[in-house]
Amino acid sequence: MKIEKGGFLKVSNIINIRHVPRTGWVLRGVPPAVAETISDHIFLVTLLSLKISQDLVENGFKVDVAKTLTMSLVHDLPEAVTGDIVRYVKEEEPSYFKMIDEKSLESLGMGKYLPLYKEFEERKSLESIIVKLSDCLATIIEGRKLVALGYRDVEEIVKNMENQVEKILESLSNLELRKALEKNIIGILEK
Amino acid sequence: MKIEKGGFLKVSNIINIRHVPRTGWVLRGVPPAVAETISDHIFLVTLLSLKISQDLVENGFKVDVAKTLTMSLVHDLPEAVTGDIVRYVKEEEPSYFKMIDEKSLESLGMGKYLPLYKEFEERKSLESIIVKLSDCLATIIEGRKLVALGYRDVEEIVKNMENQVEKILESLSNLELRKALEKNIIGILEK
Amino acid sequence: MKIEKGGFLKVSNIINIRHVPRTGWVLRGVPPAVAETISDHIFLVTLLSLKISQDLVENGFKVDVAKTLTMSLVHDLPEAVTGDIVRYVKEEEPSYFKMIDEKSLESLGMGKYLPLYKEFEERKSLESIIVKLSDCLATIIEGRKLVALGYRDVEEIVKNMENQVEKILESLSNLELRKALEKNIIGILEK
Amino acid sequence: MKIEKGGFLKVSNIINIRHVPRTGWVLRGVPPAVAETISDHIFLVTLLSLKISQDLVENGFKVDVAKTLTMSLVHDLPEAVTGDIVRYVKEEEPSYFKMIDEKSLESLGMGKYLPLYKEFEERKSLESIIVKLSDCLATIIEGRKLVALGYRDVEEIVKNMENQVEKILESLSNLELRKALEKNIIGILEK
Amino acid sequence: MKIEKGGFLKVSNIINIRHVPRTGWVLRGVPPAVAETISDHIFLVTLLSLKISQDLVENGFKVDVAKTLTMSLVHDLPEAVTGDIVRYVKEEEPSYFKMIDEKSLESLGMGKYLPLYKEFEERKSLESIIVKLSDCLATIIEGRKLVALGYRDVEEIVKNMENQVEKILESLSNLELRKALEKNIIGILEK
Amino acid sequence: MKIEKGGFLKVSNIINIRHVPRTGWVLRGVPPAVAETISDHIFLVTLLSLKISQDLVENGFKVDVAKTLTMSLVHDLPEAVTGDIVRYVKEEEPSYFKMIDEKSLESLGMGKYLPLYKEFEERKSLESIIVKLSDCLATIIEGRKLVALGYRDVEEIVKNMENQVEKILESLSNLELRKALEKNIIGILEK
Repeated sequence: MKIEKGGFLKVSNIINIRHVPRTGWVLRGVPPAVAETISDHIFLVTLLSLKISQDLVENGFKVDVAKTLTMSLVHDLPEAVTGDIVRYVKEEEPSYFKMIDEKSLESLGMGKYLPLYKEFEERKSLESIIVKLSDCLATIIEGRKLVALGYRDVEEIVKNMENQVEKILESLSNLELRKALEKNIIGILEK
Repeated sequence: MKIEKGGFLKVSNIINIRHVPRTGWVLRGVPPAVAETISDHIFLVTLLSLKISQDLVENGFKVDVAKTLTMSLVHDLPEAVTGDIVRYVKEEEPSYFKMIDEKSLESLGMGKYLPLYKEFEERKSLESIIVKLSDCLATIIEGRKLVALGYRDVEEIVKNMENQVEKILESLSNLELRKALEKNIIGILEK
Repeated sequence: MKIEKGGFLKVSNIINIRHVPRTGWVLRGVPPAVAETISDHIFLVTLLSLKISQDLVENGFKVDVAKTLTMSLVHDLPEAVTGDIVRYVKEEEPSYFKMIDEKSLESLGMGKYLPLYKEFEERKSLESIIVKLSDCLATIIEGRKLVALGYRDVEEIVKNMENQVEKILESLSNLELRKALEKNIIGILEK
Repeated sequence: MKIEKGGFLKVSNIINIRHVPRTGWVLRGVPPAVAETISDHIFLVTLLSLKISQDLVENGFKVDVAKTLTMSLVHDLPEAVTGDIVRYVKEEEPSYFKMIDEKSLESLGMGKYLPLYKEFEERKSLESIIVKLSDCLATIIEGRKLVALGYRDVEEIVKNMENQVEKILESLSNLELRKALEKNIIGILEK
Repeated sequence: MKIEKGGFLKVSNIINIRHVPRTGWVLRGVPPAVAETISDHIFLVTLLSLKISQDLVENGFKVDVAKTLTMSLVHDLPEAVTGDIVRYVKEEEPSYFKMIDEKSLESLGMGKYLPLYKEFEERKSLESIIVKLSDCLATIIEGRKLVALGYRDVEEIVKNMENQVEKILESLSNLELRKALEKNIIGILEK
Repeated sequence: MKIEKGGFLKVSNIINIRHVPRTGWVLRGVPPAVAETISDHIFLVTLLSLKISQDLVENGFKVDVAKTLTMSLVHDLPEAVTGDIVRYVKEEEPSYFKMIDEKSLESLGMGKYLPLYKEFEERKSLESIIVKLSDCLATIIEGRKLVALGYRDVEEIVKNMENQVEKILESLSNLELRKALEKNIIGILEK
């Protein structure tokens, strides 16, 4: 792909993530016609982020909703350039893949969102925690659905994500926030 | 569908809009495996809304970005209950379908977004205009792609949407806003 | 869709119902690649209508087979214009949707079948009862198959259709006819 | 497949023809997600048969509409057992494949339609001519659509079918009938 | 299909077997979007043939690996001309279908592999036994996967193939070879 | 994915590459239902390798056919673990991705083919050159087909591959070999 640096929003490239099935599912036996796509996933993450941040706001926490939603929308956009690369490949060279993701975002004309992308990767701000939790939840929801259809190998990813959710919650020092998030997550996973 | 009133976010229902191909495309000969889905569409509308509102903000206009993004996310959610109903069916009874849409939104546990949904339907606020333009642009982009693949009947929808964009722009009394939006739209459609 | 009134059979429009997955299935989580289409459904309804009417004729009942088959073929054709609209949307304004369906049929060049369509909707003649039963049976057969594949939300539709079948049978005053139909239905659902 | 002779309508087998893409299309490069299925095809043939026979009746010809529709429905049902076998395979042993088709029909619990199936194969009655013409027309309509989408190898089948239509028309000694059919065919292919 | 005799490799025809879902699966209710294709199947057969022949070589048996792999690649290629024809159709006229397959292979420009194809059909050489076993194993592996997803009618094919594997093993007079093959098969089916 | 080192052929993992559409196509707008999969691609590469090596052998060149076919089968197998990662991601860290690929191959129980995989990557032996050329040709053939269907962005990949073929041919010092390969390639691309 000839990808020029900088520039304007490249909708014609970004739109193609609707054709990319999530690699985690297809490598566990889910045909692309059944597997969710990256854009399906981004949509769900953004919706869950909205739900969680709205709830926190209503309970007195300070959340920048615009930032949360934008971060949700942007967090997987580099995959319009790179495709969906599995954790197994990335985990030994995280900094290399961060660099590639940032270059990809820029090449899509989304350079102005780099700071937000980095904030997401650092997972320190409340907004980035909400988006990461939503990311995990969206995967758990889809994964459980696939397991119920008989795609048993998917269970591994679901468990993995459930662990991640737990770890994120445990790492929170603000106990009231943690309680509010827990209540939210239980509500989302039960419906 | 047994749909209880009110309640909590029903993710398990909302998630199914990823299986609903847009009726406008399939009724013009595009197989579901090629046609975009409602969630694909919502994702693109939200991304374009982000792009346009960010740009307006940078040019000194006052846009509530959180509201714009939320409205984009929510504007087609009733279709998780109703499916995608074509304009031909709706246009003679707009108030009936508005009522159905509002009931549907509520039944999905999204009742708190009813005012936003109504604001979108009224198309008076700047945010609702941005979302409607993004809605049309997202359809034009996908439609042109389909026409290029040989689905010629789709052209009718593309033209229709181009006319809608023009009408919305013409209706704006703030000429600076209109100019800023036009520049944005040209940029999006050219890339 | 620009739809002119009257005219000749519009095959190029009608053919597109093969791209429309049944909304009831997709809104319950069945991907379009797995869900049946409207034309799949019409084919099955027509086949079941043939089976049932043939059987009744052989048992001495008077059935107009040509009428039954034509009614089966025609009963969902308006969906080539409207798409497949769920009961939830239609049930509060049945007369409006009947009007839309009739206009749609006419616009497809099938105006001469309007009386037949109305006869189907009224459900008084034996032929219209056979077609309606076949419609329910075709949905039960497909629904049970989907439930067996793990699409559990579909069960609601299956039960609904089973109730409809029962109600139709109960409403019959001719007990011999009722018995003959029951025998038929049991035979079809068991194989 | 364990297929017992005789018996009752085997809906659970017949229903599977909706998963069989037409071999002629897929062997010319059309992916199954784009190609029509056997049940899509049967539906269209039956609809065209209805159209043509109704028209002939209105113009004073004597057509058994029930027979025409039943024949249309039944003419490709053996493929629920055999799959869709291309002409190249069948043409040197037509009697063997007729035998297989008839056995298949019987095993689907459709034995009572064997005389009708044979009548179709003999192509002597007006009803069998209408069904065969509809069969060709349905293939031409779908084929032209595929050619317009860029599947150029399909053209060979379209031409083949156009020749068949011409030959059938030329073989008719009743010139008024021929004229009526020609008018019908032109009408169908133009819309 | 106009197929000239002899000539050069016809890649543009052969490539289309990737669009042909295996008839055995689709006629048992598996949608093409879920069913494996002929090229998927050939790939798996070739891989299993490699595995088995490599293993035999390492255990001191004499296997022509190049011949085994070529035979695997070629054994289903005639289906690029004929489509995938089920056993039910072929079993009463095996010699006719062998002739058709051989003509098809030739027409694909693969005439030089006819002796290999015949060797496969005769099932006497060790290489042909390895390929046939791999053919059965590949079908068992896919079949079991489909059964686990809820496609229960597929079980019939799985059992059939398991019987075939057993019969082939029982027919081997060289007991050491038989033991080595059994060990291999158990290893493959367990992973 | 929990992937243990060494061990036996993991068919249940390898089989999933049939669900992985090639990332190059989907990121250029080809829906997975139209795009080829990794196993489709491997099949074609292996077939072309057979064709080319057979031809060279017949013209007096010394080719190890078994090695060529095995290398073709194995060359993309690591993607059963990693998915299909685009060149853009890999090109700045080739040694890292080679390491990942080798680990993946081992984890699939294919460790014994590591030397062959390395030989392929070094592109020095005649066999590795044949496989690489087949890899490019298979991509050109599929790419041209997609361009003809209207997926114009694919042209970039086709040109890229055509350049690679040319470079490989130019790098050959044995002019007779080069001539023989050129003749082969022209033959393959013309049919």
